Amino acid sequence: MTPPPHAASPLYLSAPTVAQWIEQQGIATCLRGLCERLQLDYLRWNEFDKCARVPSHSPWGVIELMPIADAQHYSFKYVNGHPGNTLQGLSTVMAFGVLADMATGAPLLLSELTLTTALRTAAMSALAARTLARPESRVMALIGNGAQSDFQALAFQHLLGIQALRLYDTDPAATCKLVHNLRHSGLELTVCQSTREAVQGADIVTTVTADKCQATILSADMLSPGQHINAVGGDCPGKTELAADVLLNNPVFVEYTPQTRVEGDIQQMPADFPVTELWQVLAGQAPGRCDAQTITVFDSVGFALEDFSALRYLYDSALALGLGERLDLIPALNDPKNLLGCLGAQAFATTQPPVQPALRRAA
Amino acid sequence: MTPPPHAASPLYLSAPTVAQWIEQQGIATCLRGLCERLQLDYLRWNEFDKCARVPSHSPWGVIELMPIADAQHYSFKYVNGHPGNTLQGLSTVMAFGVLADMATGAPLLLSELTLTTALRTAAMSALAARTLARPESRVMALIGNGAQSDFQALAFQHLLGIQALRLYDTDPAATCKLVHNLRHSGLELTVCQSTREAVQGADIVTTVTADKCQATILSADMLSPGQHINAVGGDCPGKTELAADVLLNNPVFVEYTPQTRVEGDIQQMPADFPVTELWQVLAGQAPGRCDAQTITVFDSVGFALEDFSALRYLYDSALALGLGERLDLIPALNDPKNLLGCLGAQAFATTQPPVQPALRRAA
Repeated sequence: MTPPPHAASPLYLSAPTVAQWIEQQGIATCLRGLCERLQLDYLRWNEFDKCARVPSHSPWGVIELMPIADAQHYSFKYVNGHPGNTLQGLSTVMAFGVLADMATGAPLLLSELTLTTALRTAAMSALAARTLARPESRVMALIGNGAQSDFQALAFQHLLGIQALRLYDTDPAATCKLVHNLRHSGLELTVCQSTREAVQGADIVTTVTADKCQATILSADMLSPGQHINAVGGDCPGKTELAADVLLNNPVFVEYTPQTRVEGDIQQMPADFPVTELWQVLAGQAPGRCDAQTITVFDSVGFALEDFSALRYLYDSALALGLGERLDLIPALNDPKNLLGCLGAQAFATTQPPVQPALRRAA
Repeated sequence: MTPPPHAASPLYLSAPTVAQWIEQQGIATCLRGLCERLQLDYLRWNEFDKCARVPSHSPWGVIELMPIADAQHYSFKYVNGHPGNTLQGLSTVMAFGVLADMATGAPLLLSELTLTTALRTAAMSALAARTLARPESRVMALIGNGAQSDFQALAFQHLLGIQALRLYDTDPAATCKLVHNLRHSGLELTVCQSTREAVQGADIVTTVTADKCQATILSADMLSPGQHINAVGGDCPGKTELAADVLLNNPVFVEYTPQTRVEGDIQQMPADFPVTELWQVLAGQAPGRCDAQTITVFDSVGFALEDFSALRYLYDSALALGLGERLDLIPALNDPKNLLGCLGAQAFATTQPPVQPALRRAA
């Protein structure tokens, strides 16, 4: 049987192609589309074959693989985290991923995921905040003004109605970059001199710092009743942002408990520290915030399901818009049982002239 | 600091490019080069950060990720196993992989690994046999004559001096294909009517069958003293080729014990069934065969280290020969802390005209 065209030639979306797609759609539309996909996929949580991501640590950072599958599709993301990279002109986080067909194992899509990870992380934060924060939230503190912070700002503006940001970073140049990037956004921007100052009067506090260390960016004495904490930067063993008292006294929500216990801010807590998985709140199976005084904590680390949603969104959009090109990553065989047959005769040339084989049938 | 050129643009080797490279080098040279790399890497076993591969099973087959790293490099392979694929004109096994830099997490190489997996599996089988089989081995039984069998035949010819093959497959068309492909190889080919017949008089018995079931291709009563069993096809939970008595009465050698206990033929045996890791024999830390009468068993499942060796060999060869092209998989940023900055102004357009932000410094 002849395979359908491109059966094993994945579509390829380069970083420039995805950037172009975002420009064409508008970042607000992309964030909205992603958030919708995330919600739909989180609502069918039990249909997924899940595992914690698979890390490889070194003194410089971490490289991770994040696989997940449902009955139809498989996806994985490759992503690194190397805080020292910016000194060499490289990004701290670089990512790409693959969507594949469960029925055949054929890769359907290879895509850049550096830009897309920033978008999906922000869309996920917004989805969690839409579920957990007070609906009237309008002011957000943004602690850590690096590469991911711009996307958080835009997602909370477009998906939650945040109107004002209170910014702080230990590096004033990072805040300067963020202010510059948001200059036409319509957001009211306030540059603060400390985390404590930035947090004052905020409805939502987003922490998105990058240092790979046990840091205490936020402690309970800085917080006010009713705030929602969106803790994005503590996402690796040995990398935390919240003081234990922030976690101890408030309800904590996570993506996938087995992974967050290792990587999230709750890595500081005992193995039986109570948490609620966000999908349970989305599905109405667990309560979110109790009342307007509750301080809610989303201990976000990034879960493979979010990349699955993003890859499917990219794939559907690319097919609909005719984006990308096919990649000859898999040999196209006339006879799939004859892999060697795709090599020309030259491959078999040896220094000795070939001897005719004595082919005989066993007696 | 300006990053070096191509710092985050991996080299891309397509399936046609790798096929062309094999044709130019000759398959014998490629197999020899791979075998040499495998031996060197297995000899530095303790330098690697290892884990069992990460599978995702479905009713149709399996998709696996196989990561591994040393201090300098990280690699992973994506590979599937879908026995029903050939009915749709697709390969049972398709693969690709990535080599990356541990210091920065940047991907260095994205390569096809379908052809390469066939080569490295055969080179690995030959390395194990060179270590475990009787040196005077000249006749090999080849049970299962599918896509991988051709590569096994050529590896054993070129790396071990095998001169004659005794072939059997339940599908005569598969054997026909193999005989055709090897017609100029100089190998003496004997087509047999059963496994039992094929095994008779063989110095080495290679089993490389593909059905995903608990099969008994080979049982102890078929074997003769001094034979080496190269069991390649039993490589997945629920997929075995050897009867328990083949394993019980003979020394069994494996690649990486934690993975082989789950996937290899020894999945049938108790968790404490004694095995020897091949690297121990290569390093002179454990005995191989006792004497010319010993039946040795290599329970091969394929280990991530082998793809690491293959990817490094491909990468070095491609750089030396100028093969492949650069892939813009990662955004090239002027300022790595400013990911959003790679998007044009169009991305921020909204239906509302942008409002000038009220930028003020906190009191």
